[in-house]
Amino acid sequence: MISWNNLDTLSSYKELENKEKVCLKCAMSGEAGADRVKSYTMPMAAGLSYNYAAKAVNEDIIDGLAALAEEAQLIDKFAALYNGEVINTGEKRLVLHQLTRGQLGDDVVADGVNKRTFYTEQQKKIAEFANAVHEGKITNANGEKFTTVVQIGIGGSDLGPRAIYIGLENWAKTTGNFKMEAKFISNVDPDDAAAVLNSIDVAHSLFVLVSKSGTTLETLTNESFVKDALKKAGLDASKHMVAVTSETSPLAKSSDYLAAFFMDDFIGGRFSSCSAVGGAVLSLAFGPEVFARFLNGAGEEDKLATNKDVRKNPAMLDALIGVYERNVLGYPATAVLPYSQALSRFPAHLQQADMESNGKSVNRFGEPVNYVTGPIIFGEPGTNGQHSFYQLLHQGTDIIPLQFIGFKNSQIGLDVDIQGSTSQQKLCANVAAQIVAFALGKDDENNNKKFEGKRPSSIIIGEQLTPEAMGAILSHFENKIMFQGFIWNVNSFDQEGVQLGKVLAKKVLAHDTDGALKVYSDLLNI
Amino acid sequence: MISWNNLDTLSSYKELENKEKVCLKCAMSGEAGADRVKSYTMPMAAGLSYNYAAKAVNEDIIDGLAALAEEAQLIDKFAALYNGEVINTGEKRLVLHQLTRGQLGDDVVADGVNKRTFYTEQQKKIAEFANAVHEGKITNANGEKFTTVVQIGIGGSDLGPRAIYIGLENWAKTTGNFKMEAKFISNVDPDDAAAVLNSIDVAHSLFVLVSKSGTTLETLTNESFVKDALKKAGLDASKHMVAVTSETSPLAKSSDYLAAFFMDDFIGGRFSSCSAVGGAVLSLAFGPEVFARFLNGAGEEDKLATNKDVRKNPAMLDALIGVYERNVLGYPATAVLPYSQALSRFPAHLQQADMESNGKSVNRFGEPVNYVTGPIIFGEPGTNGQHSFYQLLHQGTDIIPLQFIGFKNSQIGLDVDIQGSTSQQKLCANVAAQIVAFALGKDDENNNKKFEGKRPSSIIIGEQLTPEAMGAILSHFENKIMFQGFIWNVNSFDQEGVQLGKVLAKKVLAHDTDGALKVYSDLLNI
Repeated sequence: MISWNNLDTLSSYKELENKEKVCLKCAMSGEAGADRVKSYTMPMAAGLSYNYAAKAVNEDIIDGLAALAEEAQLIDKFAALYNGEVINTGEKRLVLHQLTRGQLGDDVVADGVNKRTFYTEQQKKIAEFANAVHEGKITNANGEKFTTVVQIGIGGSDLGPRAIYIGLENWAKTTGNFKMEAKFISNVDPDDAAAVLNSIDVAHSLFVLVSKSGTTLETLTNESFVKDALKKAGLDASKHMVAVTSETSPLAKSSDYLAAFFMDDFIGGRFSSCSAVGGAVLSLAFGPEVFARFLNGAGEEDKLATNKDVRKNPAMLDALIGVYERNVLGYPATAVLPYSQALSRFPAHLQQADMESNGKSVNRFGEPVNYVTGPIIFGEPGTNGQHSFYQLLHQGTDIIPLQFIGFKNSQIGLDVDIQGSTSQQKLCANVAAQIVAFALGKDDENNNKKFEGKRPSSIIIGEQLTPEAMGAILSHFENKIMFQGFIWNVNSFDQEGVQLGKVLAKKVLAHDTDGALKVYSDLLNI
Repeated sequence: MISWNNLDTLSSYKELENKEKVCLKCAMSGEAGADRVKSYTMPMAAGLSYNYAAKAVNEDIIDGLAALAEEAQLIDKFAALYNGEVINTGEKRLVLHQLTRGQLGDDVVADGVNKRTFYTEQQKKIAEFANAVHEGKITNANGEKFTTVVQIGIGGSDLGPRAIYIGLENWAKTTGNFKMEAKFISNVDPDDAAAVLNSIDVAHSLFVLVSKSGTTLETLTNESFVKDALKKAGLDASKHMVAVTSETSPLAKSSDYLAAFFMDDFIGGRFSSCSAVGGAVLSLAFGPEVFARFLNGAGEEDKLATNKDVRKNPAMLDALIGVYERNVLGYPATAVLPYSQALSRFPAHLQQADMESNGKSVNRFGEPVNYVTGPIIFGEPGTNGQHSFYQLLHQGTDIIPLQFIGFKNSQIGLDVDIQGSTSQQKLCANVAAQIVAFALGKDDENNNKKFEGKRPSSIIIGEQLTPEAMGAILSHFENKIMFQGFIWNVNSFDQEGVQLGKVLAKKVLAHDTDGALKVYSDLLNI
């Protein structure tokens, strides 16, 4: 029997608060530190590993986190989720994004439909469509192949698919899996669509319109923008557009689209990269087989997240340590720092996935909570960040936990040996050095050159950023966020906080304003 | 006589702490709120205005901030800086980035050189070079015009110039000022350079190598990477490269470069966008006249920053309010939210400019401070962010002050009218709506749909993102950061916190490691 309780009502949490804190600097020093780095690690899918040696935990704290996981029934709640309970209570919806990449538990049937079958059918439809495009069976009106795919979507219909596209673009080009260039139009700023349209050959472009409801203001506006451009170029827009939407949306049966691929209300935008939302654009860009490999990586990682043993469940341990850092140690933020240029936009995706899920002040019953919930998430790729905001991370007055990601091998494989090492070795040397610098610090007579250390971090290490690794990393963070939501007892799957702005923006556009809103509208010439 | 004191020793700061807090929600409601939006505004350069109505201040608090500005001698310290005192005490250097865009005070002579003359001479040299490239007087070995410029640099040699290039790219294309496409190589990840090289025609590309010291690991490595590629393409690298460096660097007199343009130690990397670091790539991309207009905008904004009256000095008031929010109200971060796709990378630049400058725990004398200093800075353009992390901004447990930027007009001018409004109007309506939603919130019986409000924000409003506006905005934030450093009594112009990681990375590459560092190195296959 599952019970949903606030974090501060759990006895294991109180015990955790009272446990002696770990001196990270002491723990990471000397040979004991070396042993710790070897042992505080666990395998992930796709040959990745999650190493948490540089976190301020020890066996005692991990036992405490395990007790918290048990009392908060994290694994039972995850099972309830993948077995089809209504976990998104606010919107009264199931939460089924994991089902796009595997069957973790029972068959989930909703509205008489086996949902796993539904999702895989959509994948199959997308695969057939993508193959037909690649083979030149679906072409533009002149019988010419499409060379570019343009995703029109915002938020979850943009950030995740875009981050994954950038994540795998060079891998695909290097391995012969690159089929079509992808571009993305998201912002309602007209310069976004105009600049993308200026950069492509519209006659050979296929547009993927992504909106679950079929009503997202930005996306419909950008659709019109694109249709105008197609019309001006003398092209039939309906031969250049596909829709990704829900079956009940106005877009679903429209003859305005070459094809429609379906998602449903059980997959939230920020968790939709593995659904048709990511599936269409990524299958068109890299081929359906690459997308399937990505799903496999995510599915394998999901399986690890079902393990009751926190020492064998990377996502759950990561989540628990994050809550410990946020609520017990009082840290306000987490930095995501991939040492991989390919993951340059992955922190922006996690920023949405995490902050939109757990940036809540009420529990799942709508009662205010008495503790802090989701932290600020930000990040840029290393080594770039080292020459930017790392100063504050090393010597600022707040401690900010760090989430590193690193790969032994680059994607393209071109490299240069300078001063006895390759660029890839330099990249890896830097991430290793940073973990230790943050944890151990360095004493100095000059306070300005002194490093306190004690800055906790973890690292996900992989051989290479492949489709499987990309999927596993995505799953890791999605599940981490889900577990944290369970611990904080919030509903991670709604986003009521985005509504008020939409309502007021409509009022502005209808000139139905007074007070401050009217003056701002005037100042902005609306 | 200037004296440098810690914030918590200032009596005006104690008075500020004791002042009654402002109820932002009350202040912004009704007709009083409307009046406030009209009056809590001041002009900036380039037709911009800074509106702080939605900040939790009133006349009493602003008077308190003015007293703090006076006691902390902010204007005197700024004058000392631009008149050539050694403000960067850690590195014993002058701080002269404002001099690139105007002469605010006395002539500054260092090492027998009038520095303003030095900077303008470099600008002139760059302008002549850029014009010669554009006119086809400087060409590749085949006498063909260069079409692409590639900046090789990291940190301040990358983020600022890149953000400004993206900021003005579409404006330049629309106004006939676009001369050459620019690309940027920064990361030591070999996939960064490889991907950029794959995307360009190297035979028609000019590379700008930017390193003040001539020793930055990433930059020199990427230079070699590029030289290899040029060689493989049968090209003479020295005919495709210019250097931006200091006169004493090994790059300065090398015959490996077509030309060398100089910077010096008195301009820090993160403040170098107006020096040759930004000047070379931006003059090549847009022409020297556009770069001069950008400098003019910055120079005009600098003049406003010399005003003793906080109600007429946007950068100083912004700085003071930021300190009030950080130290008195206890907020951990600031989000930078430009409603302009062109400013998509500007938050990443500010992240460096701010966090690297003021992420310090010791004062300018090397003594630990007893208060928090620089906040976390992060952001993405609107409306994209609304569909991402705004959930946490509206309903999360931490209050995060917001810095909006908005323009009445787009850059490209292409637009579409949907449901009675253009995309640009929708964009502006959204930023107006957000300011009010954050400040006023909304009550609801359902706590999950309730918005507390009380989230403070300010907005910079402009007609259009022109070169002048871009310069003025850059100057505003640079000066804000400088004033905050003065208030916190830290040295905003060094960055000792980046050193330890460099030292340890070298050890890893030399295999001179033990303990945890050795194990991480092994795990990463170095």
